Amino acid sequence: MTKLYGAIEAGGTKFVCAVADEDLNVVERVSIPTTVPEETMTDVFAFFEKYEVESIGIASFGPIDVNRKSDTYGYITNTPKPGWKDYNFLGEMKKRFDVPYAWTTDVNGAAYGELKRGAAKGKDSCVYLTVGTGVGAGVVVGGKVIEGFGHPEVGHITMRRHPEDHYEGHCPFHKDCLEGLACGPAVEARQGGVKAYDIPKDDKAWEILAYYLAQACMDLTLILSPEKIVFGGGVSKQEQLFPMIRESFKEQMKGYVPTPDLDDYIVHVDLGDDAGITGCFLLAQEAAAK
Amino acid sequence: MTKLYGAIEAGGTKFVCAVADEDLNVVERVSIPTTVPEETMTDVFAFFEKYEVESIGIASFGPIDVNRKSDTYGYITNTPKPGWKDYNFLGEMKKRFDVPYAWTTDVNGAAYGELKRGAAKGKDSCVYLTVGTGVGAGVVVGGKVIEGFGHPEVGHITMRRHPEDHYEGHCPFHKDCLEGLACGPAVEARQGGVKAYDIPKDDKAWEILAYYLAQACMDLTLILSPEKIVFGGGVSKQEQLFPMIRESFKEQMKGYVPTPDLDDYIVHVDLGDDAGITGCFLLAQEAAAK
Repeated sequence: MTKLYGAIEAGGTKFVCAVADEDLNVVERVSIPTTVPEETMTDVFAFFEKYEVESIGIASFGPIDVNRKSDTYGYITNTPKPGWKDYNFLGEMKKRFDVPYAWTTDVNGAAYGELKRGAAKGKDSCVYLTVGTGVGAGVVVGGKVIEGFGHPEVGHITMRRHPEDHYEGHCPFHKDCLEGLACGPAVEARQGGVKAYDIPKDDKAWEILAYYLAQACMDLTLILSPEKIVFGGGVSKQEQLFPMIRESFKEQMKGYVPTPDLDDYIVHVDLGDDAGITGCFLLAQEAAAK
Repeated sequence: MTKLYGAIEAGGTKFVCAVADEDLNVVERVSIPTTVPEETMTDVFAFFEKYEVESIGIASFGPIDVNRKSDTYGYITNTPKPGWKDYNFLGEMKKRFDVPYAWTTDVNGAAYGELKRGAAKGKDSCVYLTVGTGVGAGVVVGGKVIEGFGHPEVGHITMRRHPEDHYEGHCPFHKDCLEGLACGPAVEARQGGVKAYDIPKDDKAWEILAYYLAQACMDLTLILSPEKIVFGGGVSKQEQLFPMIRESFKEQMKGYVPTPDLDDYIVHVDLGDDAGITGCFLLAQEAAAK
């Protein structure tokens, strides 16, 4: 009898729900729009009622509570998204499906997928950095996703400004943190509203963006020394950026830490849009094995 | 029969070697000056020849190679200290004492000691940040010291400069990284050579230092979300700094991440100079249990 596992990649615009066997062969996969919990979750519950799964892995948009010692463990916490603030995601799932669960952030799910089956396969550690409408990062160290009192919020680390960048920054909290200077809307606002795909490949805008992303890679390297830094999100489709990020990383690090070969260290996502759901399945299998 | 465990805290000025029982009751403890390997290590070997230990935990000054997949695992690598560059520390120990070993950085040893018996007791994660002649950090996540392709080098993360700080920075690699702006020699150079203990407690110098240390705490929080940040080294003796660091942390974070209560989050080292050797004993016991 084939064992089945469930996976939910809960994003801000859609929830991907899927069921697969031990070898990750997908039995069914659906995409459900993220509206309000009453609607979205009704469809999620209906989907999983069709299957007997061993366990379910959930990687959710955040912020979420991942602290097992907390009363609100398993909740989506302080999101501005209507209806989802303080939603007891894990609790509502458990009420209906009494199986073991894995519970982590969307980006940690993707980082885990890339570690086990993607660009960081065979490694024990990696950072998955997604740069699109926002900036987020998942972190795996020693084969496990990082959990402390909460989860990483790498998007908001402090940045030293590029000397030629006079854009004030897009973050409502910090203005010019990493996300405030490097997310898609920031790149476009810096150009006076020109869409990213319309900015010429040799425009200064890319040098400035590469500088910030390289600085993030450098600080992540100095703090975590991950075996790979994997870029996902819209930015990973801007091919011209990767050599620029590697070059700026080298320039900013000034040879202080000998890193792995940069072409092999700062890389593209390998599983593309499947990184997250793959991570969920693998985390679900581990939860079942415990 | 009482089981004995060995510990070596290998610092740049002295090596502390000790033997203790399972309950960390110290049988003997010696301090050996760090000169050249031929001298220092001869004394280290002689010390451990007197005992039958189950295992030995080593926390060494760096940079060191902690990558188990590397050919030079167990070496001190690129140090400027005469005689120690590329010294096969772990290999030379293993030749003489065929026991299980733990091998990590001096600051990771201290972080582990503080996690298990000190300021972060009962937690699963902490950062130990030492600020003195240099700046270094040990990191424990999920109960384990962080290891990726290498070890953390937190001292060299990028800093946004304090607007009133015009000191160029002390780091020979990056000038104004964290260490370059916040280590003891930087604090003194900024004041035109005034010794840190002679700088009045209400001098601007402390506000500037607190700003940089708070910024480091913020970035470490966003990347690692540790349950505690523990300060050691000379700086931890400047009592007036702690409220200033907490205040500046709050100001820079702008409420983005809800942290534990700051009085309980950014704290002093608890074990003082014993943090490192305590960590070594505990890591040795774990190595023996494997």
